[in-house]
Amino acid sequence: MIKMAKQAKISNAVIKRLPRYRRYLNELRKKGVDKISSNEFSNLIGYTASQIRQDLNNFGGFGQQGYGYSVEGLYNEISAILGLDRGYKMVVVGAGNLGRAIVNHTYYYKTGFVIEGIFEVDPDLIGTEINGIAVMDYDNIVEFVEENDIDIGIICTTKEVAQEVADKLCFAGVRGLWNFAPIDIETPSHVAVENVHISDSLHALAYHMNRS
Amino acid sequence: MIKMAKQAKISNAVIKRLPRYRRYLNELRKKGVDKISSNEFSNLIGYTASQIRQDLNNFGGFGQQGYGYSVEGLYNEISAILGLDRGYKMVVVGAGNLGRAIVNHTYYYKTGFVIEGIFEVDPDLIGTEINGIAVMDYDNIVEFVEENDIDIGIICTTKEVAQEVADKLCFAGVRGLWNFAPIDIETPSHVAVENVHISDSLHALAYHMNRS
Repeated sequence: MIKMAKQAKISNAVIKRLPRYRRYLNELRKKGVDKISSNEFSNLIGYTASQIRQDLNNFGGFGQQGYGYSVEGLYNEISAILGLDRGYKMVVVGAGNLGRAIVNHTYYYKTGFVIEGIFEVDPDLIGTEINGIAVMDYDNIVEFVEENDIDIGIICTTKEVAQEVADKLCFAGVRGLWNFAPIDIETPSHVAVENVHISDSLHALAYHMNRS
Repeated sequence: MIKMAKQAKISNAVIKRLPRYRRYLNELRKKGVDKISSNEFSNLIGYTASQIRQDLNNFGGFGQQGYGYSVEGLYNEISAILGLDRGYKMVVVGAGNLGRAIVNHTYYYKTGFVIEGIFEVDPDLIGTEINGIAVMDYDNIVEFVEENDIDIGIICTTKEVAQEVADKLCFAGVRGLWNFAPIDIETPSHVAVENVHISDSLHALAYHMNRS
């Protein structure tokens, strides 16, 4: 982590690969594997050994010549680099199917991402619960985000209102937006954003189907 | 497309960017924009102009010096390259929240991806409908896929059964798998697969939140 702070900006392509490294390392940990060479890791994860070494060198390496990588050590380092060694409080906007799927996807709890509230405009849904989490009136979202120090807003609305919802969440003080509406949300520079376009992977699948 | 067939293998990183190009071109089309320079496109999409030119050169270019790219032409070409100029028949396995979210995400219909059936093991769900599509007994999936020439299986199950479901779908004859279970599915070489790990983008968000 100390080395990290001195590094130049790391490319987004590398950042995008880190969660994948972490997932594979987690599986290895669970199987009781202590160490792995970059060649073994390459076979497992599907990146070249040279790509793996290059990626991990961005963060100071971690590997030892003739020994390989410590699975537990590398897992912990990547977790820390990603910021997964701390907790995040989140709200979901939109309690439709996608919002429900996110709320019920309890996996996130395991890595410290806790959904504190769900917000809706539909009066039939306000006052209900999803997975034990209250669905509240969207009109009260700013107050809730401020009072509960919410870190992340998850946008599960239509694309028509997504930017407006994003603006309100930024105003209320979130530090990150995870957007599932099919539009690229814009945020002030101090608010991070990940726009998830699920259909992109379907289109990439179509490409590969026509080539394989 | 003729040029395409002669090309060497295009890197997966380029393929992954094509759906994004297409989305932006589609927005431009809808706004009635006829042409765009690589610099303008760069400002819009957030890749460098040189990256854009390099990516599109993989497919023979499409741009004309001093004119820029034809929005409609480039949109159509990328659609064809991705294989979106034809239709795909799909089945969903798993009618939980995620399966429901996918089925209700009607966007896919617009680009020729049609969900023909949903399969479940839960007797309470078999015989119901989601978004007008029948939920059927998973025991009958092989027959259904064969008889209806299903192209794509969408896996919305737990990670414990996902590979088994994938094997059955491959056996039944699908050409592609779109997997949402949090595990990397393996397929025979003639079946394409896209493993979607939604949490990866949440972890990338955490990274950016701690750096911005």
